[in-house]
Amino acid sequence: MNETRLDGKRILLTQSNVVMGPVFRDVLTEQGATVICDERLLDDPALPAEVVRAAGRVDVLVAHLGIPAPSTPVVDVDDDEWRRAFAAMVDPLPRLAAAVLPQMIERRSGKILVVGSASALRGMKRASTYSAARGAQLAWAQAVGVEMAPHGIQVNAIAQNLVDNPTYFPPEIQAKPAFQERIKREMPLGRLVSAREDACFAAYLCSDAANCFVGQVFPVCGGWVPR
Amino acid sequence: MNETRLDGKRILLTQSNVVMGPVFRDVLTEQGATVICDERLLDDPALPAEVVRAAGRVDVLVAHLGIPAPSTPVVDVDDDEWRRAFAAMVDPLPRLAAAVLPQMIERRSGKILVVGSASALRGMKRASTYSAARGAQLAWAQAVGVEMAPHGIQVNAIAQNLVDNPTYFPPEIQAKPAFQERIKREMPLGRLVSAREDACFAAYLCSDAANCFVGQVFPVCGGWVPR
Amino acid sequence: MNETRLDGKRILLTQSNVVMGPVFRDVLTEQGATVICDERLLDDPALPAEVVRAAGRVDVLVAHLGIPAPSTPVVDVDDDEWRRAFAAMVDPLPRLAAAVLPQMIERRSGKILVVGSASALRGMKRASTYSAARGAQLAWAQAVGVEMAPHGIQVNAIAQNLVDNPTYFPPEIQAKPAFQERIKREMPLGRLVSAREDACFAAYLCSDAANCFVGQVFPVCGGWVPR
Amino acid sequence: MNETRLDGKRILLTQSNVVMGPVFRDVLTEQGATVICDERLLDDPALPAEVVRAAGRVDVLVAHLGIPAPSTPVVDVDDDEWRRAFAAMVDPLPRLAAAVLPQMIERRSGKILVVGSASALRGMKRASTYSAARGAQLAWAQAVGVEMAPHGIQVNAIAQNLVDNPTYFPPEIQAKPAFQERIKREMPLGRLVSAREDACFAAYLCSDAANCFVGQVFPVCGGWVPR
Repeated sequence: MNETRLDGKRILLTQSNVVMGPVFRDVLTEQGATVICDERLLDDPALPAEVVRAAGRVDVLVAHLGIPAPSTPVVDVDDDEWRRAFAAMVDPLPRLAAAVLPQMIERRSGKILVVGSASALRGMKRASTYSAARGAQLAWAQAVGVEMAPHGIQVNAIAQNLVDNPTYFPPEIQAKPAFQERIKREMPLGRLVSAREDACFAAYLCSDAANCFVGQVFPVCGGWVPR
Repeated sequence: MNETRLDGKRILLTQSNVVMGPVFRDVLTEQGATVICDERLLDDPALPAEVVRAAGRVDVLVAHLGIPAPSTPVVDVDDDEWRRAFAAMVDPLPRLAAAVLPQMIERRSGKILVVGSASALRGMKRASTYSAARGAQLAWAQAVGVEMAPHGIQVNAIAQNLVDNPTYFPPEIQAKPAFQERIKREMPLGRLVSAREDACFAAYLCSDAANCFVGQVFPVCGGWVPR
Repeated sequence: MNETRLDGKRILLTQSNVVMGPVFRDVLTEQGATVICDERLLDDPALPAEVVRAAGRVDVLVAHLGIPAPSTPVVDVDDDEWRRAFAAMVDPLPRLAAAVLPQMIERRSGKILVVGSASALRGMKRASTYSAARGAQLAWAQAVGVEMAPHGIQVNAIAQNLVDNPTYFPPEIQAKPAFQERIKREMPLGRLVSAREDACFAAYLCSDAANCFVGQVFPVCGGWVPR
Repeated sequence: MNETRLDGKRILLTQSNVVMGPVFRDVLTEQGATVICDERLLDDPALPAEVVRAAGRVDVLVAHLGIPAPSTPVVDVDDDEWRRAFAAMVDPLPRLAAAVLPQMIERRSGKILVVGSASALRGMKRASTYSAARGAQLAWAQAVGVEMAPHGIQVNAIAQNLVDNPTYFPPEIQAKPAFQERIKREMPLGRLVSAREDACFAAYLCSDAANCFVGQVFPVCGGWVPR
């Protein structure tokens, strides 16, 4: 089933050294892709276009945009926290799109996969800033997916939560009984989603086998949200 | 059933002179509320706190934040369009919340109703900026709803689309056969939702009868989204 | 706001003496409706038509169809449990519809409100039979809602869970610390939805104010499902 | 990435000669699975257990249960249509589960993939019987998914619509301009989902790479439903 492989595809992966970055890079490469990695936070308005320009041909953009989730009570959220979250996770999206879509439109082929969060699908306490930014990402992917479909371009999103990664869940956290209790209680899966499971699914969505998905949001969170 | 009435409630309504503003004001008033109207676009960072301060006691905040939806193709969206949309529709939310929630927390009672859009729930072409901003609103309401529930405060959102209002659907637009065709084709309801239907539902969600809803998004769009 | 009242409306309420039946009857009556109550389980194929015939004019049918939820592990569910659940909760729907819709179609006005369950929206252990039957109800309401909208008839559903009622949550259950712990943990609302809150919302959906909703599913479960 | 392959897996596929059956068989086989095909409609209560017994070890059950969708107006749906739909598509589920889950529970490994329909997620006219039965399937998969997760067993569902297959969309239908118009209008994808795209995704969900999904419903319908 060659269409699930990524041979010959050039995939641009942003923030490639944090959170899901390293495992995505490895799994996409395993599947045959040439992964172009950029490690920078894209909160500088000029960076997205620069990153895309430097990448040359981009068959798939994996928009992996994240910052550590603040846990500020909603009444204490200030402009600075809000602005930094949106500058890093939301504002780069239209800039990346404007930079990368023209070459995809010309080839009538391409994909953007937004690596989003299920925190936009289910409310959590002390997560208002993060959830709002993540909500913008998912709604953007839905809209751009519908707009780009006639051009042969697929834009979709993963909405992940409780995926094992060293940034959010370092070993010392995972070793705590309270953490393990929480996972058992909150996760129908009974464990964290493994980084590799998440990456395999992302790789699938980057492949030609996924040409049929349009502006769709795929929860990857072990049943934490039902749909 | 007194709990659906709004007698004695002070409701702060933002951007009260545009889109749903006037009809919301009328219906909330009919139901017994004292409606404190503010007409300004809240894109100035200092305004939300000022508006709340001027309002005095606020039992319910109706966060009615909107701008005309741009219809820019995604590749042509620029920083200015993006920034203006978020400045008007998204950035005021945490500022309003920080200003109004402390008095509600102290009284262990209060509500925020976000007047959002179903464009965040279903993709549309040439609507990426607007959808993204609207997606931030809905995800924010979900998160803040869960955070505020233990304080006796309800935060919920309407996700409307294709609601009759003079800003989006002036009579000359509605008179066009192409428009009527489109409504018949796209709207299971077969007509626009009336402004009053939308306002009545909003009034319900502002009442004590709606104390049971937590961070919930209610589509009001005549079946345009199923859920 | 007269359109939220039910004056002059004849509402047929099934299984009126169990679960939500009594409180629905009281609140609908308070709102001005004439409530025609039928107490029987409608698992006999001939009953739905008979109940509708006996009711005469029906402006709104509240399809309140339930049985105590079995808690059988999925591997032990037998044909008898399955059949009884569907016979009571699902099979009456098309029979009720075939009996009551013709008069509504003729008057170009009417409503069916299905009193469903959020167990169809979020998985629960040992609830497969019940969830499946409830899933059939919600999907049926969506489809019939779209089909009936052009006739001026609204078909919608409530998807409730963790609503206070003497059938599911008798006082001796509610008094248990373990139960109270579970509610605090699982319910963002932090308490059961009150029977009256649920009934008020149902009454709203029975009113002319709700003429704009088409095949829509409204969770009423204190945030137990986000949407 | 071996975990997306199906080598060594024994997959039981029901109704293997209709609708998605043949292409699922081919693609699952390509991926290394041994596909045990049963061609019968499973509306006889004794059949599901018999089919499972005959299959021996079953690592994955693909519950592909369908009948041609009736297009009866809701007021004309009779008991016979209703019963046949549920007997073929819904009633076999608990029987299959009771037959196949014990061996999976013992091995602490296994999967059920329900091949469902997006008609349960979005209302359609003259589809009430079919939608209701499909709704039961999806809600069942959600509930059983949550119940089986602690046993190392994954139960998930595809909710497909507008997937190319000779049963629903024979060439003579697809050749009609009206059909092509409808697809362009209703499908954000602008074409039918190909049978192979659907089968590749099903194959993925049958693989160990999908061990992280719990009671999840995956729309495969080219954007016909957004989520």
